[in-house]
Amino acid sequence: MHPAKVEVCLTPASFSAYDNPDAVVVIVDILRATSAICTAFMHGVKRIIPVRTLDEAREYKAKGFLVAAERDGIKKEFADFGNSPFNFSKDRIVGREVVYSTTNGTDTIMMAKGSHKVLIGAYLNHQAVVDYVLREKHDVLIICAGWKFKFNIEDTLYAGALAEAILKDANFSTICDSTYAAIDLWNIAKNDLMAYLEKAAQRHRLKKNKLDDVLDYCHTFNLTDTIPVLEDYYLVPLVTKV
Amino acid sequence: MHPAKVEVCLTPASFSAYDNPDAVVVIVDILRATSAICTAFMHGVKRIIPVRTLDEAREYKAKGFLVAAERDGIKKEFADFGNSPFNFSKDRIVGREVVYSTTNGTDTIMMAKGSHKVLIGAYLNHQAVVDYVLREKHDVLIICAGWKFKFNIEDTLYAGALAEAILKDANFSTICDSTYAAIDLWNIAKNDLMAYLEKAAQRHRLKKNKLDDVLDYCHTFNLTDTIPVLEDYYLVPLVTKV
Repeated sequence: MHPAKVEVCLTPASFSAYDNPDAVVVIVDILRATSAICTAFMHGVKRIIPVRTLDEAREYKAKGFLVAAERDGIKKEFADFGNSPFNFSKDRIVGREVVYSTTNGTDTIMMAKGSHKVLIGAYLNHQAVVDYVLREKHDVLIICAGWKFKFNIEDTLYAGALAEAILKDANFSTICDSTYAAIDLWNIAKNDLMAYLEKAAQRHRLKKNKLDDVLDYCHTFNLTDTIPVLEDYYLVPLVTKV
Repeated sequence: MHPAKVEVCLTPASFSAYDNPDAVVVIVDILRATSAICTAFMHGVKRIIPVRTLDEAREYKAKGFLVAAERDGIKKEFADFGNSPFNFSKDRIVGREVVYSTTNGTDTIMMAKGSHKVLIGAYLNHQAVVDYVLREKHDVLIICAGWKFKFNIEDTLYAGALAEAILKDANFSTICDSTYAAIDLWNIAKNDLMAYLEKAAQRHRLKKNKLDDVLDYCHTFNLTDTIPVLEDYYLVPLVTKV
């Protein structure tokens, strides 16, 4: 058997070049969408409905749904809350459905819909994602949500961490330039992530809007074993055979 | 005066996110289009007509033009020569017009047409490009041609080298994540470029097709002072006021 291949797509703008229907896709939007989604499932949300447009989010709100919606980091006025993982607290969301729309993350999730599986990845559920991927032995495509079709540092670093962990298993290999680059950047950054993140524009965007309280939290490994997965149009907890 | 900004667009797929009509754009396709174009001007080509499609290239050939055309590294059968810088020798091209179509490079050049200037950059004319950009004091956008809308290592490394050289001048600054990443990758690679390039898929593509004789040459700094520039639909030597 050939080893399964690992690839990293550094922005959704390049998705069509990496699109692979056989791949397990891992969507990465560390600051903050995929960190928030992992937090929501850790705190018992029943399912998340990712929507691409604010109009859709507004329609759900009018129908009585709980809605999280932000653009450029700022909560939309009609929404119940924004994009901070700290908004997705147990008291608010346990057992509930949440509609979710963000600048980059939700769009990217729906873009990958045709893939074998679409998982939500973050530092928070890192080991669970690695373990699942290693068991599945499918190709892996890590998609960084980036920033409005631009490359971003924080997603690339995590893509590097994830790719490196997967590639330690002999069933996986890569000949993908962006995978090598992401791993090398991760290895430059990992010993002082917070210092390296000073290079990330999003770090400064969040600071300017006083939203950077999540920085340490969003870079914490393995707080949860739950992997959110896209089923039809909804994110639900992945049920894994162990 | 605010410092001019430096940005790196890692693949043409992201171009619309970085598009800046005020910018001096530098197109980078190290293996091999922009290295070949710099070589052609070093050897006295009069002008180059970049064309996006092979059909256009074929039509020019039928009209008697000298045509360079390749796809995936391989010379097209109808063309006079392919994409190796070594094809653009003085005896073949001095004083002549050459029609040129490549997998990634020529497409990227025409994409950026609406920018303030579109320059062709490579290791070969590095210092000339740096000097020109520093004199102009416009924003700078370095566009990596990449590989079929994917990120590639060899263009990113040179983008890092170029961005780093420009940013040493206090009239320039950056808050661009991909610029920081490219510079960091360049600094990992620069002390043993040939070893680092083992990670580049294009390096292996060229080797497989016995076309990797150009590797050292395409990574040689400052063989020429000529900067090819796009004027209307043609590449011509930039005439600089010194």
